[in-house]
Amino acid sequence: MKSAAAVFLLAIVVMISARISPTVAAELRSTGGLAVVIERTTGSVLIVERGSRQVLDRVEGFGDLSHASVVFSADARFAFVFGRDGGLTKLDLLTGEIVGRVIQAGNSIGGAISDDGALVAVANYEPGGVRVFDAETLEPVADFDTGAKTIGLVEAPGRRFVFTTWDTAETWIADMSAPEPSVTIVPDIGANPYDALLSPDGRTYIAGLFGEDGLTMLDLWEEKPTPRRILPGYGRGEEPLPVYKMPHLEGWARAGGRFVLPAIGRHEVLWVDAASFEEVARTETHGQPVFAVARPGGRQVWVNFAHPRNDTIQVVDTVTGEIVKTLKPGPAVLHMEFAPRGDEVWVSVRDEDKVRVYDAETFAITGEIAAGTPSGIFFTARAHRIGL
Amino acid sequence: MKSAAAVFLLAIVVMISARISPTVAAELRSTGGLAVVIERTTGSVLIVERGSRQVLDRVEGFGDLSHASVVFSADARFAFVFGRDGGLTKLDLLTGEIVGRVIQAGNSIGGAISDDGALVAVANYEPGGVRVFDAETLEPVADFDTGAKTIGLVEAPGRRFVFTTWDTAETWIADMSAPEPSVTIVPDIGANPYDALLSPDGRTYIAGLFGEDGLTMLDLWEEKPTPRRILPGYGRGEEPLPVYKMPHLEGWARAGGRFVLPAIGRHEVLWVDAASFEEVARTETHGQPVFAVARPGGRQVWVNFAHPRNDTIQVVDTVTGEIVKTLKPGPAVLHMEFAPRGDEVWVSVRDEDKVRVYDAETFAITGEIAAGTPSGIFFTARAHRIGL
Repeated sequence: MKSAAAVFLLAIVVMISARISPTVAAELRSTGGLAVVIERTTGSVLIVERGSRQVLDRVEGFGDLSHASVVFSADARFAFVFGRDGGLTKLDLLTGEIVGRVIQAGNSIGGAISDDGALVAVANYEPGGVRVFDAETLEPVADFDTGAKTIGLVEAPGRRFVFTTWDTAETWIADMSAPEPSVTIVPDIGANPYDALLSPDGRTYIAGLFGEDGLTMLDLWEEKPTPRRILPGYGRGEEPLPVYKMPHLEGWARAGGRFVLPAIGRHEVLWVDAASFEEVARTETHGQPVFAVARPGGRQVWVNFAHPRNDTIQVVDTVTGEIVKTLKPGPAVLHMEFAPRGDEVWVSVRDEDKVRVYDAETFAITGEIAAGTPSGIFFTARAHRIGL
Repeated sequence: MKSAAAVFLLAIVVMISARISPTVAAELRSTGGLAVVIERTTGSVLIVERGSRQVLDRVEGFGDLSHASVVFSADARFAFVFGRDGGLTKLDLLTGEIVGRVIQAGNSIGGAISDDGALVAVANYEPGGVRVFDAETLEPVADFDTGAKTIGLVEAPGRRFVFTTWDTAETWIADMSAPEPSVTIVPDIGANPYDALLSPDGRTYIAGLFGEDGLTMLDLWEEKPTPRRILPGYGRGEEPLPVYKMPHLEGWARAGGRFVLPAIGRHEVLWVDAASFEEVARTETHGQPVFAVARPGGRQVWVNFAHPRNDTIQVVDTVTGEIVKTLKPGPAVLHMEFAPRGDEVWVSVRDEDKVRVYDAETFAITGEIAAGTPSGIFFTARAHRIGL
């Protein structure tokens, strides 16, 4: 009886192993080609395999994702999701499980991860400042109390974070490479900076100004970076506009020797010389541009538009400055994400509950993914980009 | 009795699940932060986790890896290893298993993968030409018989491959975006092109010439790309050198508005204006440079040297052109690979059977991996770069 039971148990073990093995095999998942899609209304995200367009997981519990952004761990295993409600949530892309979550402030505006992947930082409106967390444990590591609403947080090479204050017009360069953080504060950035970007090489930090016409540039390679006003006519002749209509600065695209960027309040994109930062041309567009995103390599720029013209995308040739294609993906095109080598673009069409995939060369639709009110789309290749 | 047995079995199931779960968890592997290290003498490769420096697998059976290169599938799950003997081997980085291998020619010089990840191409000395394979199955898809030794194979946006012939001085642009491939042949590239590179934006193809002084550039954005000679004094005054001493063109680094590249046969790196392609400065170095690799972002350039001065690396500031650090990693430094955001560098020290890891900011050694005669080091972030 004893040995019969043992045989029986062995059979159970084998059976269970056999049952589990295929599951294990099916669970093998590479993380280099995944997409995280924000479902803004339900505070959930989809994990999608880019190649097969297959939804691997739908994960809930991220809080308020009505304004959300995502960065990735250096090995692309984990996504850090920043919600509007100050929530910082760590998602395991291999298992589809939330492995950490902190409500680190009352109202946050986005985050960044250090170049070595060790630290995650979040910029806050309320109570203001930047909080830094251990990327492994989400334990607090540092707290930069700027005494003001803080925007334009980016990562810069050398384990640094750079961010800017709305009320006091300072850019803070926080160096986390030594055990004790050190901060350089650059004053006089200009009236009410509302957003900022870092050039892809990590050198040029540009803040958009709400309170005055133009933008401010810092060269982070300088020993003591000094603010320099650029594009004094950027918003010339326009009435002040509500902040939510200001174009996203992360939408600036560099193509060849020029930047292309959304004009403020006009149906135009602007071409700016990348060396002199002077405006050199304009292209008339279908509506007020929101994002102008360069295809990797910079051969074309894809532009989406503000409400009520937000059902359209235009593709602009960066050599001629001419519009080569007008697409109608559907109502409320919120975001465009290029495959890292530029062969395809994923487009979120919020009011149709769809992500549409376009071939960037032929403009053919090559895929469609069902998603509830999709907004941001983030490919794991971002893990390897400077500034995020 | 029945229900007691059921409870007992349930306990077994739970126990087994508990026992198996950690194993499953241990097998979960993300592919965004892996390294493939070539062990040249034994024809084997190491799969290493970059963050932990842990060797996950050592895999044999790649044939002759005395001159080897690697590209990755779009999802970073598979490595395609190109050997000198014409072997093309597909390695699953999740399981550590070889899942495909073809000997596609007698003597090959390297390969590339199309921007959409669907096609793998290999350039051959013997019998010459380029062969294209399905990346999924390794079935042959196309065969470009150039009638000559073929070098300088790169991927270009739009599902194209570009390559050049040594004997007949032609650059072929093969467009694979339609069901039938089409080829544009550009003649008069110059005498005996020996290697080529593509700029990171996929626009500028530059071939190095062995048979005459200087290099040849093609603008792939032009309707009909026309060869243009650049740097006519690149090898001026030098005696012809054996091919194996020519610097690697993929070692060209772009930093700010300049390229820095190894001089031929001299103890110097050259600074070249990226717009005019004219030489603007030189920096004296420890030896004849082999690779000049820019830290991502371009703030510094790391240079290694030809035998017998190949135990040294020099780090050059790209703003001042001055050497800021001289390192002695050990005998026979063959390759340097930067983390994609530039925080660290992996260096293969062949004759010490070691890969050493340097902090790119402080130059401290932060890790060491045992490897048999290591040469090339390839991080999976390459999956997302144009031109590879």
